[in-house]
Amino acid sequence: MFDFLTQNQNAQFYECGYSCDNAWLLKISQECFFITDPRYTLEAQENCNSNTRVLESSDITTALINLINELKPHKLIFDSKQISLDSCQKISSLTKTTLEPKINFHQKLRIIKSENEIQKIQQSQKLNQKAYDDFASFLCKQQTPLSEKTLHFYAKNFLQDFGNFELSFDPIIGINQNAAKPHALPSDTILKKEDLILFDAGIKFERYCSDRTRTAFFDHSFNFDKTQKFKDPKIQKIYDVVLQAQEHTIKNIKSGMSGKEIDALAREIIEQKGFGKFFNHSTGHGIGLDIHELPFISPRSEDIIEDGMVFSIEPGIYIPNEFGIRIEDLVVIKDGKAQIL
Amino acid sequence: MFDFLTQNQNAQFYECGYSCDNAWLLKISQECFFITDPRYTLEAQENCNSNTRVLESSDITTALINLINELKPHKLIFDSKQISLDSCQKISSLTKTTLEPKINFHQKLRIIKSENEIQKIQQSQKLNQKAYDDFASFLCKQQTPLSEKTLHFYAKNFLQDFGNFELSFDPIIGINQNAAKPHALPSDTILKKEDLILFDAGIKFERYCSDRTRTAFFDHSFNFDKTQKFKDPKIQKIYDVVLQAQEHTIKNIKSGMSGKEIDALAREIIEQKGFGKFFNHSTGHGIGLDIHELPFISPRSEDIIEDGMVFSIEPGIYIPNEFGIRIEDLVVIKDGKAQIL
Repeated sequence: MFDFLTQNQNAQFYECGYSCDNAWLLKISQECFFITDPRYTLEAQENCNSNTRVLESSDITTALINLINELKPHKLIFDSKQISLDSCQKISSLTKTTLEPKINFHQKLRIIKSENEIQKIQQSQKLNQKAYDDFASFLCKQQTPLSEKTLHFYAKNFLQDFGNFELSFDPIIGINQNAAKPHALPSDTILKKEDLILFDAGIKFERYCSDRTRTAFFDHSFNFDKTQKFKDPKIQKIYDVVLQAQEHTIKNIKSGMSGKEIDALAREIIEQKGFGKFFNHSTGHGIGLDIHELPFISPRSEDIIEDGMVFSIEPGIYIPNEFGIRIEDLVVIKDGKAQIL
Repeated sequence: MFDFLTQNQNAQFYECGYSCDNAWLLKISQECFFITDPRYTLEAQENCNSNTRVLESSDITTALINLINELKPHKLIFDSKQISLDSCQKISSLTKTTLEPKINFHQKLRIIKSENEIQKIQQSQKLNQKAYDDFASFLCKQQTPLSEKTLHFYAKNFLQDFGNFELSFDPIIGINQNAAKPHALPSDTILKKEDLILFDAGIKFERYCSDRTRTAFFDHSFNFDKTQKFKDPKIQKIYDVVLQAQEHTIKNIKSGMSGKEIDALAREIIEQKGFGKFFNHSTGHGIGLDIHELPFISPRSEDIIEDGMVFSIEPGIYIPNEFGIRIEDLVVIKDGKAQIL
């Protein structure tokens, strides 16, 4: 193993069991040093693993430099996408240690999930799915019209289970043409019977993220299942293409494939049906402590898929100013094939 | 005015009326170029001001480099604390434009607030205060015991006014010894009568942040006013010291003072009473689009205070494993003196 430094909170949590928004983690020969300011010292001491020494300083970068000069590691790995130019210049000019950039080095360490991590992601997705079901039941019973903004608020309450869980990201809820924006901001649009509703959400269970998208037809017996019947035949046709692309991809994933080969499984079906230019994002992304992590499932990804990797499969078709469809599940690779979590 | 580039969302919003989490803003001779990926293009086009051209690319940094090479600005300012080493190396190696680092350059542009901005911060704080009052009334009426985690959840609902507002930061709610951690995570501790409760929260109104802290004695007629009567004389004594430090500071702020002179107003009172080592953070921070921005009110701040600046005054005393007290208001400088917002 190599020595490294990081300010990334999920990397910090993975290594020492705690993180906060103003800290450096330095790992040298399996020992961790967690340098934070006085606001977080007590909590860090209470929560860090036994392999970690907590150090307090009101100037954490100067404290880091002093520690590097004391311990004199030969070389430190860092992520050049996650370090600011300013921090990097300070550390490299005031220490003699070689700093070696390595993009995504910590996500690479975490790309194969342990059985314990897979269970946490599975539990996270199970709780997430329950929130979808509870939210759908609530919407079926609602008498007063609700705007996207209000839906967004109630959705977050169900996802958080009224304070028990954190969100893995700000959920996306789009009605009709607002669903055509893959990352729509909630508006004042009111949800009406026979509308299309796209819902993309996830929570965190013991810090592990879930992520799921459903697109549904809103009527009196509305739910977020994958089987949906839309009144408009154009919507139904496109829904069926997205569903076919998603299911075909999951069925045909094999370990040893690259991210771009998996992306192509979904993209080819959508292109064959003539909607290629309306599928304007990647097919999926790895998930774990980060909501987006390795492996990437995109047209340019060379990541090779192996047992123990967990990622989303989420093709979509977005017709500007009309509507958008996306269907997303998480899969884990076991015995060379994809299983839905 | 100078030309610049930034990925900071609040700088982007200030310049062009929109922002998202994957975009470069390039400003050259008063014209803005907003480069984002296809997920955000529609929304960017709908929301950006007329001075802004929206450009779409699935590789925004390459698109930025191409644009710089086309427009050939002589020099571009950037914030070396906000740019990653990787982005900076790519841009500087693939363009001939001089890149000049300037830490906090955009916060410096925004340090003096317009009348319109002050009104937005004031409205934000007014709505924030209403949420405190509604939350306190709700707590007075509660029959079932609530944990910090549940309090945290309900507090967020009141702050968001059930979907109307976003939070300016994740609120801090600490009971007794958990209030001794200035940035405590909510625990399973149950709130009981005669407990001390520290509540630090803010919302966003039209993107402008508010921020307020109160420490209160929880009983049947509980509220978040500044006048508090604690049963424990030690707590009352320390509460009175913090209140005196806060009010003395606000009363004695004058334009022309430096951030560190204002910090000293609060710190000297707390030190005189023998609690100096228990006041382990800065006295205050500027606020606006960012929850923490210029001017800094800290022992090392050389920022000179002028009319139109808005910042917090929030001294605190934290006795580890016992309790913590913090009292925070926002002030604006008008006619050389501080007025509470």
